[in-house]
Amino acid sequence: MSAREIAVFSGSAHPELAAEICAQLGVPLLPTQVQRFANDCLEVQLQANCRERDVFIIQPLVRPVQENLVELLLMLDAARGASAARITAVIPHYSYARSDKKDAPRISIGGKLVADLLVTAGANRVLAMTLHSPQVHGFFDIPVDHLHALRELARYFRQYDLSKTTVVSPDLGNAKEAAHFARLLGAQVAAGAKQRFADDRVQISSVIGEITGRDVIVLDDEIAKGSTVLELLDRLRELKPRSIRVACTHGLFAAKAIERIGAQEDVLEIVCTNTVPIPKDERSDKLKILSIAPAMAEAIRRIHNGESVSALFESV
Amino acid sequence: MSAREIAVFSGSAHPELAAEICAQLGVPLLPTQVQRFANDCLEVQLQANCRERDVFIIQPLVRPVQENLVELLLMLDAARGASAARITAVIPHYSYARSDKKDAPRISIGGKLVADLLVTAGANRVLAMTLHSPQVHGFFDIPVDHLHALRELARYFRQYDLSKTTVVSPDLGNAKEAAHFARLLGAQVAAGAKQRFADDRVQISSVIGEITGRDVIVLDDEIAKGSTVLELLDRLRELKPRSIRVACTHGLFAAKAIERIGAQEDVLEIVCTNTVPIPKDERSDKLKILSIAPAMAEAIRRIHNGESVSALFESV
Amino acid sequence: MSAREIAVFSGSAHPELAAEICAQLGVPLLPTQVQRFANDCLEVQLQANCRERDVFIIQPLVRPVQENLVELLLMLDAARGASAARITAVIPHYSYARSDKKDAPRISIGGKLVADLLVTAGANRVLAMTLHSPQVHGFFDIPVDHLHALRELARYFRQYDLSKTTVVSPDLGNAKEAAHFARLLGAQVAAGAKQRFADDRVQISSVIGEITGRDVIVLDDEIAKGSTVLELLDRLRELKPRSIRVACTHGLFAAKAIERIGAQEDVLEIVCTNTVPIPKDERSDKLKILSIAPAMAEAIRRIHNGESVSALFESV
Amino acid sequence: MSAREIAVFSGSAHPELAAEICAQLGVPLLPTQVQRFANDCLEVQLQANCRERDVFIIQPLVRPVQENLVELLLMLDAARGASAARITAVIPHYSYARSDKKDAPRISIGGKLVADLLVTAGANRVLAMTLHSPQVHGFFDIPVDHLHALRELARYFRQYDLSKTTVVSPDLGNAKEAAHFARLLGAQVAAGAKQRFADDRVQISSVIGEITGRDVIVLDDEIAKGSTVLELLDRLRELKPRSIRVACTHGLFAAKAIERIGAQEDVLEIVCTNTVPIPKDERSDKLKILSIAPAMAEAIRRIHNGESVSALFESV
Amino acid sequence: MSAREIAVFSGSAHPELAAEICAQLGVPLLPTQVQRFANDCLEVQLQANCRERDVFIIQPLVRPVQENLVELLLMLDAARGASAARITAVIPHYSYARSDKKDAPRISIGGKLVADLLVTAGANRVLAMTLHSPQVHGFFDIPVDHLHALRELARYFRQYDLSKTTVVSPDLGNAKEAAHFARLLGAQVAAGAKQRFADDRVQISSVIGEITGRDVIVLDDEIAKGSTVLELLDRLRELKPRSIRVACTHGLFAAKAIERIGAQEDVLEIVCTNTVPIPKDERSDKLKILSIAPAMAEAIRRIHNGESVSALFESV
Amino acid sequence: MSAREIAVFSGSAHPELAAEICAQLGVPLLPTQVQRFANDCLEVQLQANCRERDVFIIQPLVRPVQENLVELLLMLDAARGASAARITAVIPHYSYARSDKKDAPRISIGGKLVADLLVTAGANRVLAMTLHSPQVHGFFDIPVDHLHALRELARYFRQYDLSKTTVVSPDLGNAKEAAHFARLLGAQVAAGAKQRFADDRVQISSVIGEITGRDVIVLDDEIAKGSTVLELLDRLRELKPRSIRVACTHGLFAAKAIERIGAQEDVLEIVCTNTVPIPKDERSDKLKILSIAPAMAEAIRRIHNGESVSALFESV
Repeated sequence: MSAREIAVFSGSAHPELAAEICAQLGVPLLPTQVQRFANDCLEVQLQANCRERDVFIIQPLVRPVQENLVELLLMLDAARGASAARITAVIPHYSYARSDKKDAPRISIGGKLVADLLVTAGANRVLAMTLHSPQVHGFFDIPVDHLHALRELARYFRQYDLSKTTVVSPDLGNAKEAAHFARLLGAQVAAGAKQRFADDRVQISSVIGEITGRDVIVLDDEIAKGSTVLELLDRLRELKPRSIRVACTHGLFAAKAIERIGAQEDVLEIVCTNTVPIPKDERSDKLKILSIAPAMAEAIRRIHNGESVSALFESV
Repeated sequence: MSAREIAVFSGSAHPELAAEICAQLGVPLLPTQVQRFANDCLEVQLQANCRERDVFIIQPLVRPVQENLVELLLMLDAARGASAARITAVIPHYSYARSDKKDAPRISIGGKLVADLLVTAGANRVLAMTLHSPQVHGFFDIPVDHLHALRELARYFRQYDLSKTTVVSPDLGNAKEAAHFARLLGAQVAAGAKQRFADDRVQISSVIGEITGRDVIVLDDEIAKGSTVLELLDRLRELKPRSIRVACTHGLFAAKAIERIGAQEDVLEIVCTNTVPIPKDERSDKLKILSIAPAMAEAIRRIHNGESVSALFESV
Repeated sequence: MSAREIAVFSGSAHPELAAEICAQLGVPLLPTQVQRFANDCLEVQLQANCRERDVFIIQPLVRPVQENLVELLLMLDAARGASAARITAVIPHYSYARSDKKDAPRISIGGKLVADLLVTAGANRVLAMTLHSPQVHGFFDIPVDHLHALRELARYFRQYDLSKTTVVSPDLGNAKEAAHFARLLGAQVAAGAKQRFADDRVQISSVIGEITGRDVIVLDDEIAKGSTVLELLDRLRELKPRSIRVACTHGLFAAKAIERIGAQEDVLEIVCTNTVPIPKDERSDKLKILSIAPAMAEAIRRIHNGESVSALFESV
Repeated sequence: MSAREIAVFSGSAHPELAAEICAQLGVPLLPTQVQRFANDCLEVQLQANCRERDVFIIQPLVRPVQENLVELLLMLDAARGASAARITAVIPHYSYARSDKKDAPRISIGGKLVADLLVTAGANRVLAMTLHSPQVHGFFDIPVDHLHALRELARYFRQYDLSKTTVVSPDLGNAKEAAHFARLLGAQVAAGAKQRFADDRVQISSVIGEITGRDVIVLDDEIAKGSTVLELLDRLRELKPRSIRVACTHGLFAAKAIERIGAQEDVLEIVCTNTVPIPKDERSDKLKILSIAPAMAEAIRRIHNGESVSALFESV
Repeated sequence: MSAREIAVFSGSAHPELAAEICAQLGVPLLPTQVQRFANDCLEVQLQANCRERDVFIIQPLVRPVQENLVELLLMLDAARGASAARITAVIPHYSYARSDKKDAPRISIGGKLVADLLVTAGANRVLAMTLHSPQVHGFFDIPVDHLHALRELARYFRQYDLSKTTVVSPDLGNAKEAAHFARLLGAQVAAGAKQRFADDRVQISSVIGEITGRDVIVLDDEIAKGSTVLELLDRLRELKPRSIRVACTHGLFAAKAIERIGAQEDVLEIVCTNTVPIPKDERSDKLKILSIAPAMAEAIRRIHNGESVSALFESV
Repeated sequence: MSAREIAVFSGSAHPELAAEICAQLGVPLLPTQVQRFANDCLEVQLQANCRERDVFIIQPLVRPVQENLVELLLMLDAARGASAARITAVIPHYSYARSDKKDAPRISIGGKLVADLLVTAGANRVLAMTLHSPQVHGFFDIPVDHLHALRELARYFRQYDLSKTTVVSPDLGNAKEAAHFARLLGAQVAAGAKQRFADDRVQISSVIGEITGRDVIVLDDEIAKGSTVLELLDRLRELKPRSIRVACTHGLFAAKAIERIGAQEDVLEIVCTNTVPIPKDERSDKLKILSIAPAMAEAIRRIHNGESVSALFESV
């Protein structure tokens, strides 16, 4: 693919991240123009030649999700109609991944439907980060490169003395990632045993692993309202850790989650990445946002050049 | 198809219209439950058995268009997954029809893309009303029944003395429909000659037909901001009509259009249909809303029973 | 669909189950003829009229999986070419569901590929039982009815005094099902905390829940080699339960698992269903095989008649 | 795409145009062999290597349309089977574009059907000129490059004194193009107000714009039987222009249209392009045929090299 | 399917056959209107309600093949757009079946391409008669019912004394059908050994079987120019048969074949069916045309009612 | 394509052939890892970067056919998911080609179904050798390069005095290939007249051509059980040839065919190619296996470089 020029566009969802990725890549972020008609329909114009280019369109499916999704679909279709050689949808946060099963009759499996819509609109491939469940990969009829943000998180935490650190996963479903992270840090691993009983009452009944007197890093894939984390903190305190930090990839932080978690005095820090834009006025001193732009840029560079993306993570 | 039971659902866009259609059909409007997750993703549950049913989902693509579009896609997919025998998307206002050509490089033809998305999500057929251009029919890979609201509008105007009436189309592109309407009323037809010059300056330079001393009905397919109508009114006044009424199928009425047109003293009435919901507090004394529910219901009945829908309009 | 006749065929994988389902349905199991040519290719003839029939083809993907899979694909294609009105692949054990994620680079997600192959060959819908992960549902582009065998298992265990019973899931990933099962029995629930560390060493480090002095039912979705169960038994014994029974839906029992688990003196019983055929000479006194034929037959009857299948399980 | 060799073939429809395009491109027109069997079926052989080539097949859908269409489909399929890297159908006159709406029940929208047939046969993209309506672009599921011949027509007319020129569109539907053309010439624009009443009686009731004493250029997208033009001439004469010339892109000239229009003494010239072949013996002294081969060749060159085609027209 | 009404239409290719089939079925042949525009494009209107009907469109691909093919495609698409429940293309002579292999580089396999075009245009199934090679069945992605005309031919010949009859196939490729036919008649079978050498020189070097003194019936699937038959006659005469008759399913009779074969004094009769229309003025006294309308009608009836079509021929 | 790197993998079916092809190409055979799970499902990992590579996967569909087919499908899907630029399935023996027609009701045309499965799994093109019937080419929706092994066989036989040689085809269906082969050798051609009567009794009634006193080479596309060959030998002996050799492309040799044919004293030699692996212990002194690896390698080289493959055989 390297014989073709690269062309990177961004939708309205997270232009700062797109700009940062382009800066890392050393290519310009090409302009787009979004127009909203009197009837509320959208029109997006890609304002640079796409013909025979290797086109990347960056758009996490963040709030307002439906607006950003339709905008992305319009951009993919525009790139296809403009004769792009290949179109990669770069979706750092694929929120519909949480709709991954039919847990009630007569609902759509949204993560599968949106995957199909992306293909219909013209996506040839997808670059995603930390999908909610690994099975979501199989919803796509096109190649998916699935990155993880653990390397970025690990690099950040290495500034600390990690000799007595335990990484805690709020539930065992996510424990594999936590174990991987612990290994990167040379730390121990623990997990809350989150049970989901038949009446959908979720309860963290216990924490498996060594907590007392240790420096705890709570790790989850995403934090939305933060209820699970807050409940886990209650369990952890009973075990008297030395310190607590909270980390995640996708910092959705709905319902004042930053404020509510930050209000816990024993939480020293909340660390997330910038897959989701966080308004300036919601940030706090305890919040630390790491950039996944270098990782995304390196993946895009490898996709463009036909180099192995899985190799990128082997040294992690 | 009549061997199968009918099942009608409505999205959030216009439940009043759906309820009215169901009342006409004599069938219940089946319940749906829309849920918005903390990450702003939607989930829609169809709360009645769809299996082997002839399912109709009513959802005009009105403001907020993107929310309503994605909701419709989720409902179509849910019905398919729930083993519906046939799924008809009932879209009384298909707003993306205005995006019907590529008048700038590197844009999507939105009307075509959305048609493809509907098919991907599971629509087997579409029931639409007064598409912006008749070519949009050809964007769909599935059968489309395309209704017009002229019969409803004509029935309303027949309460008046129509002996000196002229129907005026704001531009000649829409003149065929105006002529059809005039014939229904036994009236004359006229049209504004709207020229769209190369620099996109639009100007209604003249009105072709007899206006002076006549009762004028301005007819358009839709009124959004109302600028075209207001400009036409200026031209008409120069020709001294006896009275002016304004009529359209899709009353979008953005940017206070009802207020602005209603403020014209010589406009006696603004008549539209209920394809688009109009908030109670935007309505005015001059506004008359006709219901297309009986026509939609009759079309649904015929589709369900396998009777000719085109025959429905032959007597018009 | 009930206007059409039903036609049920079986592949070579599990004719006993198919016969039992047909007996329940009160319809004949229609004959098929499988021929293997000198070049090892298969040919399958459906030996009864399929034209405009509602065809069901019963074939679990059990050992020899590849032979049974290709045979099923040939049967689906034959039914389609023979003008079946609708074709349902009845797959009581969808073994490729375990290949549900890309946990290594450059592998196929087999569960997704096989789903696509079934659609290509002509399946219009699938009836499956207890898929390994619920996300696998989303791999299919066609409607899936997903049954569970818990009702059958519960009915069996109700013969015992259940007043001191605890249902144990070997890992928390399967705990939801175990909790559901416990509720059916009025029992408690417990779970092994199976951790999968970064180097893929799996270890059941502890059991969460009340075990001591209780009657334990170990419940898993499938038992293949039985290693997980055997390891769990070690943990359980440390907690001194009053009795132990083992239950699962899919009794694959590879590597002499029946013998090895049965050899545990404190295991009173191994209970499974007949989604997978178990050779007569591998059965033992401790093995109890429950039939899911009545449940499958009822689901087929409802699919055929267009009745709700989800309603079937609401009373569970 | 420039790394791949270009390969240009022509069907039987218009080999002269294909030869001229190739001469402009500086590449050979590769040979094809068309065979008609005793049963009237066609076979077309592309007689040069297509493997990994960037293949262009030139075939306007002109009389005999059905023969030329099927021949084009056979050539597209042959190129695909011969492993072409990319196949562009070059269709200078896409006649089925006139079948662009469903103006009667139970007809095909031919322009959409033929677009689908081209994709089925193997076309990866289309290069067309002056489609009858711009919405036809949306009938294609593949990228379309849509050229216009106005630049060629303008270059020709610049030989005259244009100081008192008015460009006249026979109807306002085509007026945008006429306005664009007028701007290219620094001329005024006018338009006939063609009304299509309900009983399909078409009448040019008036001409909007300045005609008296001016040099008129009548401009239409195509002239078939010429009835509309002849009717417009009657209206124009009433307004006493100084001179009249007639111009169009597609000179179909059925029913002796050249002769009939040429017989009008006040028509000085009929100007068209060579998108449609005109038999030598139908040409007359008043007929001037401009070549669109240079424009088509430049578009092909840009498509092949991945350069912007829209940019080609920005300076117009 | 019998719950739905049947609707039969005919294209322009062979309306007499369609009328005869409808008479057999006891249903009306519904009207169609074919229009040819000034630009040579076709438009076909189906002039009866198709909605939820079981539609059959009768059109053999006979001369002019391309016109008839495109007309058929337009009719299929019209029926689909008009909401037909099911559309069967009834193609008594599928002439493109002869283009069934790639015997030269860079040609289309026309029989496969046309099959794909039929599916694209909307055909749900095909009813064909005596395909040139049985593999052509596999070119279709939709169900095909493949009839043979042998029963009709046999019924005719049973009027003669068949005690000394030999059925002769011109080549051994067609010998299976000849053997089947001989069995129906209680006759012997023979075959010309047509060898196709590497330089495409075809030669009937010998006739295998008993000819001398016998009543010979030459049987082929189709006769176009008749060269093969004429050559075979030369070989047969050397073996001194008692009488000669010629029979085929598809009587294409190009290049005055009826006249040329009829001119052979020892040929008593030429028997064919009416899959292909034969102009009145080309018929001769020696020509006997049998009707396949009863067989086609019976197959249509069975397809419509969901009865086995293969069973129809079991008693043959 | 030559700008991209080539990547060749082999399934389990015939690694020796793959290794030989790679040696000819001068590229490494890249490693794969096949894993069989406890539930008998397969997983295949391609153990080298595929991204933007021109991938070739070598797998003849030989015994065990179903295992090798599913393995091939898994490899194709893995390559697609791993972002291969193009994927060619290299299938030296496509055994399902024998299932090429519907000679009984309600069977699958296996050759067509498997072609569709290969496309579904991700194959972009196929390289095959000596398909059972040339029509099978038309079963594929993707480009097929179809090689023949005659050049290899001819080169081998040229070591002998060919002045009195006759090539004999067991039936006339295969005679064209035999004639081609005879021409390559400067030999005569003959053929058995294999008749397949209605009751499927096959009988070689005679041999057409000169046999007596000549050196006979029996040529068939494949030999499975060898029954046809053995029967032909009986006929040939009656005609007293000077010597007999047997040759074929695909040496399946089921049911001890090598032993049974070799036991015929007058058969001097059995010559086949290595499209099918032959276990060492089944080989005999009379068996000569020619390698088609050089021809396959040259075809792969030309496909990779975009050179004509048909040209490869023009000099034959």
